[in-house]
Amino acid sequence: MSSFVKIVLDTKGADKGPAELIRGGAAALAKYPSLILVLVGDEPFMREECTSLCMPMDRVELIHAPDGITNYDNPMEAVFTKPESSMIKTVTALADREDLFGMISAGNTGALLASALRHLSGKDRVRPAMAAVLPAADGSFTCLLDTGATVDCDARTLLHFAHLGTAFMRDMYGVSSPRVGLLSNGAEPTKGNRVVKEAHLLLKEAEGIHFIGNVEGNRALSGDCDVLVCDGFAGNQVLKVTEGTATRIITDAVRYSKKTGNASIMELVGHLMGIYDISALGGGIILGCAKPVIKARGSATDKTVVSTVGMLMNMAENRALFDPTKNTI
Amino acid sequence: MSSFVKIVLDTKGADKGPAELIRGGAAALAKYPSLILVLVGDEPFMREECTSLCMPMDRVELIHAPDGITNYDNPMEAVFTKPESSMIKTVTALADREDLFGMISAGNTGALLASALRHLSGKDRVRPAMAAVLPAADGSFTCLLDTGATVDCDARTLLHFAHLGTAFMRDMYGVSSPRVGLLSNGAEPTKGNRVVKEAHLLLKEAEGIHFIGNVEGNRALSGDCDVLVCDGFAGNQVLKVTEGTATRIITDAVRYSKKTGNASIMELVGHLMGIYDISALGGGIILGCAKPVIKARGSATDKTVVSTVGMLMNMAENRALFDPTKNTI
Repeated sequence: MSSFVKIVLDTKGADKGPAELIRGGAAALAKYPSLILVLVGDEPFMREECTSLCMPMDRVELIHAPDGITNYDNPMEAVFTKPESSMIKTVTALADREDLFGMISAGNTGALLASALRHLSGKDRVRPAMAAVLPAADGSFTCLLDTGATVDCDARTLLHFAHLGTAFMRDMYGVSSPRVGLLSNGAEPTKGNRVVKEAHLLLKEAEGIHFIGNVEGNRALSGDCDVLVCDGFAGNQVLKVTEGTATRIITDAVRYSKKTGNASIMELVGHLMGIYDISALGGGIILGCAKPVIKARGSATDKTVVSTVGMLMNMAENRALFDPTKNTI
Repeated sequence: MSSFVKIVLDTKGADKGPAELIRGGAAALAKYPSLILVLVGDEPFMREECTSLCMPMDRVELIHAPDGITNYDNPMEAVFTKPESSMIKTVTALADREDLFGMISAGNTGALLASALRHLSGKDRVRPAMAAVLPAADGSFTCLLDTGATVDCDARTLLHFAHLGTAFMRDMYGVSSPRVGLLSNGAEPTKGNRVVKEAHLLLKEAEGIHFIGNVEGNRALSGDCDVLVCDGFAGNQVLKVTEGTATRIITDAVRYSKKTGNASIMELVGHLMGIYDISALGGGIILGCAKPVIKARGSATDKTVVSTVGMLMNMAENRALFDPTKNTI
C-alpha cells in the first residue's frame, strides 16, 4: 500500500481563477511530502503554471478539461450537458479511479452536489449533506450539518444527517461514539419548531446514534457534541453568524490597537486570526458520498487550497489509523 | 406634560430573586434623574429593601402582588388564573394607567407574551413578536425579530414582523424610513427556504416597507438594515451564536493575555465586554403592544435592570422627539 495520498483539485470555478488555486497546490505539495496532486483544468495553462512555480512534477498529474461550469449554469443541467467540464471530470475521476482519495472544488455548489449525488452516492443514492468541521472551544472538532445543501428538511432528513455525521466523525476523526446534538432554541426537549421537536423524538429512539439532546446556538461550538444536526437554513446561519461576529470583533481589536497605540494587541489579533479566519478554515464537506468531497468557497485563495488539502490529509491519516477498509462516509 | 418617565418593574420571576432586581432599580434611579420606578411584588419585602438601599422614595411607587408566576406554570393558564401575580399586575397596570410609559419583566416568557397579547395588543390583537435591538458594526442599531416568540412562521407572519419592526424603529429610534432586510442563506432573491422565498416576494410588493432584500448571517449586524426579519427559530440562532462567539473570543483573549503575560490585552477585553456583554445588553422587546414591554433574561442581574431601564428611557426620549402622539408600536 502506497503511503502517498492522491487528491484531485478542480482548478476552475473559483472567483480568483485557476492560477490562484494552482499556486495553492504548489504550497500544499511543499507542506505535505506524501501528497500527490491531480490537477483538472486547461492542460496547457496548468502545465505552464506548474513549470513557472517549479512544482515537483513527479507528484503532479494533469487531467485536461477544456470546459467549465459557472455560477450562472443550472446545476442539474450542467451535470448532464457538460461532461468535459473540470468539475465533472474531477468528480468522475474520483468515482472511477481507486487510487484517488478525495477531491476539492470551489465551483458551483449546486452542480457539485448534483454531480456528487450522480457519481459518488453509491447504490443508496442518499441525499448528500454539506457539513463543516469547526474547531470547538475545548480543542475538539464539531461537525455541523447541514450548512446549506438542503434548506427545507423534514424530521427524517435530520435523522439521516445524524447518521451521516456520526459515520463521518467516527471514520474520519476517530471518535468512537460521536455525541449528536440537535440545534434548537432551547435545551428542553419541548423547545424547537415543529420539525425539530419531531426530530428530537426520532433521534432519541434511533439506533446507532448517541443523542445528547438539544443544543442552543450559544453552545454550538462549545465542544458539547461531536455532530450538530440542523437544517441547511439554520446551519448556514450558525456558520455565517460565527464568521460575522468573529470578523467584527477582530476588526474592533485592530481599531482599538490603532486608537490606543497599543501595538501588542496586534499579537492577539494574529493569534485570533489563526483560529477564526474562515477563509483559511477551508470548506464544506459533502457527506453521503463514497469518498471525501470538499467544497471550497467561491472566494477560495491559495491558502484555502492548503487548508482543504490539510483536511483531506488528516482524514486519510485517521482513516488509515481507525478503519482502512471503511468506505462509507 | 411631566418630564418624568414612569417605568413598571416586575420584581419577581428572575433566577436571582427580587432583591437583585430592586438593587438594579436603585442603580437605575441614581443613573436616570428623570426616572420614576413602580415596583411590583411583595410589598413588605420591597419596602424593606428600598429602605436599606436608601432609595429616593419620592420617585418610587410600590404595587403589592402576593402571587408569582414561575417557569413551571403553563403560560396561557397563568394569565387567566393568577391575577394577583406580579407579572399580571405589572402588565395590567401598564395597560390601565396612562402615566406609565413601559415595563420590564424577567419572568416566564410565554406568560409575558400571552398577557401582553391579552392586555396590551389593542383592538387588532396582532401576534406579538419578540425583538432585540442590537448594536450594529457601524454604530447604528438593528432591530432583529422574531427572536423566539414564534418559531413556526408562514410568509405572512414574516411580513407582519416587517411592519412591527418598521413602526418600532421609526417611532422609538427615529429612523424615518427603516431599511428592512430578510435573513436568508444567500443574498440572491432565489435563496432561502420555502417560507423565506415566499416572504421575499411579499416584502418586495409591500407598501410602507423599505425592503432592501436578503441579508446573510455574516451581515446580520453589519448595519446594512435597520430591521432584520426572520422566524423565531432563526432569530434565536442569530442572537445566541453571536453571544456564544463573542464570549468565546473574549475568553480566548483573556487566556492569551495570561499565557503571554501581556496585561495590556485586558484593556481591550474590557473594551470588548462593554460592546458584547449580552447580559448588559438588556432584553428582548415585545412588539405588537400598545406600550413598550421588555422581557429581561431569567438570569437578569442588577446591571440588566439598569440597561433595560436605559433602553426605555432612550425610547421615551426618542418618542418625545419624533412623534409624541404616536402610540402604535
